[in-house]
Amino acid sequence: MQCGKQTTILERPVYIRSCASVVGKKEGDGPLGKLFDVAVEDPMFGMKNWEEAESKLQEMAMDKLMIKAGINEEDIRYIFAGDLLGQLIATTYGLKKYEIPLFGLYGACSTMGEAISLASMCVAAGNADSVVAMASSHFASAEKQFRYPLEYGNQRPESATWTATGCGAVLLGLEKGTMLIRGFTTGKIVDFGVKDSMNMGACMAPAAADLIERNLKDIDEKPDYYDMIITGDLGHIGRRILIDLLKEKGYDITDRHMDCGIEVFAGNEEDTKAGGSGCGCSAITLCTLIEERIRTGKWNRVLFIPTGALQSTVSYNEGKSIPGIAHGVMIERGLA
Amino acid sequence: MQCGKQTTILERPVYIRSCASVVGKKEGDGPLGKLFDVAVEDPMFGMKNWEEAESKLQEMAMDKLMIKAGINEEDIRYIFAGDLLGQLIATTYGLKKYEIPLFGLYGACSTMGEAISLASMCVAAGNADSVVAMASSHFASAEKQFRYPLEYGNQRPESATWTATGCGAVLLGLEKGTMLIRGFTTGKIVDFGVKDSMNMGACMAPAAADLIERNLKDIDEKPDYYDMIITGDLGHIGRRILIDLLKEKGYDITDRHMDCGIEVFAGNEEDTKAGGSGCGCSAITLCTLIEERIRTGKWNRVLFIPTGALQSTVSYNEGKSIPGIAHGVMIERGLA
Repeated sequence: MQCGKQTTILERPVYIRSCASVVGKKEGDGPLGKLFDVAVEDPMFGMKNWEEAESKLQEMAMDKLMIKAGINEEDIRYIFAGDLLGQLIATTYGLKKYEIPLFGLYGACSTMGEAISLASMCVAAGNADSVVAMASSHFASAEKQFRYPLEYGNQRPESATWTATGCGAVLLGLEKGTMLIRGFTTGKIVDFGVKDSMNMGACMAPAAADLIERNLKDIDEKPDYYDMIITGDLGHIGRRILIDLLKEKGYDITDRHMDCGIEVFAGNEEDTKAGGSGCGCSAITLCTLIEERIRTGKWNRVLFIPTGALQSTVSYNEGKSIPGIAHGVMIERGLA
Repeated sequence: MQCGKQTTILERPVYIRSCASVVGKKEGDGPLGKLFDVAVEDPMFGMKNWEEAESKLQEMAMDKLMIKAGINEEDIRYIFAGDLLGQLIATTYGLKKYEIPLFGLYGACSTMGEAISLASMCVAAGNADSVVAMASSHFASAEKQFRYPLEYGNQRPESATWTATGCGAVLLGLEKGTMLIRGFTTGKIVDFGVKDSMNMGACMAPAAADLIERNLKDIDEKPDYYDMIITGDLGHIGRRILIDLLKEKGYDITDRHMDCGIEVFAGNEEDTKAGGSGCGCSAITLCTLIEERIRTGKWNRVLFIPTGALQSTVSYNEGKSIPGIAHGVMIERGLA
């Protein structure tokens, strides 16, 4: 059901029936460490190169999700999935062994929001019973794709984020689960002209601010409608920009804003700088911290907004700006 | 409505209300030349580099579509779009000026099938009135992305395809139009282990064969249910493999198979070799030849199956196989 300009309220609630998260060592050692299903010491995940390692992450998350949900491959109607690598090769080689229809998505680090939006629409419309939404990133495959070879050992400015190594996967369906998807607000591309790929928070904050304002206007509510407004990977600098931009628009979310990128590496800023990033960052936080707080009743209603910076090495080398996009999902407490 | 293992029959018919196609000179000089809305002589489309040229293609197709449909930007609820470049930069910079919620998709050259599937699901579910599905490719940006610099002047084997320079865009809605979307069959990744990136037809034919068999089984019909079964960009070699694979499965589609890649450059094989390819290839053929034959009643029912080869330069250099994926759309005659 259309609600305002960019929001869809699902005609019937869709539930997240199960979640799975697989991460690397740094994430496992971080504040969310105990909540992950699997944390792997070997950054190569037993594979031959970084891309295969990221594919393995997706495969492990998929397998873990099926075990936790007690379902088999043939029970899953669709997978909506993506990653950050050119032509989605982490997804291709990670999921090719499963004989499940696949919709490949690219929304940069907003992919988990895009995946849950489309997957929940598909379930609510009666086109599927069990659908998986997932997204992954790997620190080393992302550095190789977007920045410098690890061997170069470049310094990182304070505004840089650290790509989280992780894959989060959720199973959506009509059967009740701990989290309920009420609807979603789909983002448009927002470009403030920022060109600094070492300050992704600044690139994405305008898109997040635009999305939050749009969601609140569409549903005609104030920020306190939500117990928490959760962005994907703005980090410490992007968070400050977001809060300032929203204040200019007349919304103060200071007391109810959380950023997955800040949470996932909290206390380790000397190393990870402004926070975590990557499609996997918001996906693994959803499957752990957010799921736990909703399940235990600490939060009853949140707006979950993975945020993406749209760029490639080619666009960077051609001197283009880095626009942002954000996809918001309205999540409520499911099972009491 | 679920139909069999991989097919969705829409709960109400969705129509393609309008089509737009913008292409380059070679496509304009080809057999479909007169049917394109715009053919541009300058391969740079007035821009500074190949990626910007491809973005301009998307922008021009979007503008043309709105003019032909008689609608404005604010009437469009969502865009489902993608291209072949890493991190979808042609789409990002081509569509960023439009203030329209965007779902970025990557299905390699199957993207137009994926986009129409998701867009039609969205409309049928009542979540949107007007939705755009589009895909683009550009010969030179694709060569730069996947193969050799144009200046290198490499020879091309007979099995090579020529990436079509073009963007096709369709407007979907509930209001009647010339083409009706009955449903779609979503593909899974199919890998026969082919590693030859100069023979994409061979990489994709198994996925196309799998999709066609699955569609016919799901709807319990024989190939003659369709007036034409139309693959995206298998080319001459892929077509032969497809027909052979389907004969092994007990289906003979020889008399009703067409391939967009063969049609778009027919008669120019000395130059373009096995045929056209790229996400734009099937998209521009849908918006011209296929639309015309359906509108004029030559065909009443077709299965349109864009086909994609899932690879990147990184996966190629790492020695990986090139799996295929195909997304099928069941299209019928709309307005009599």
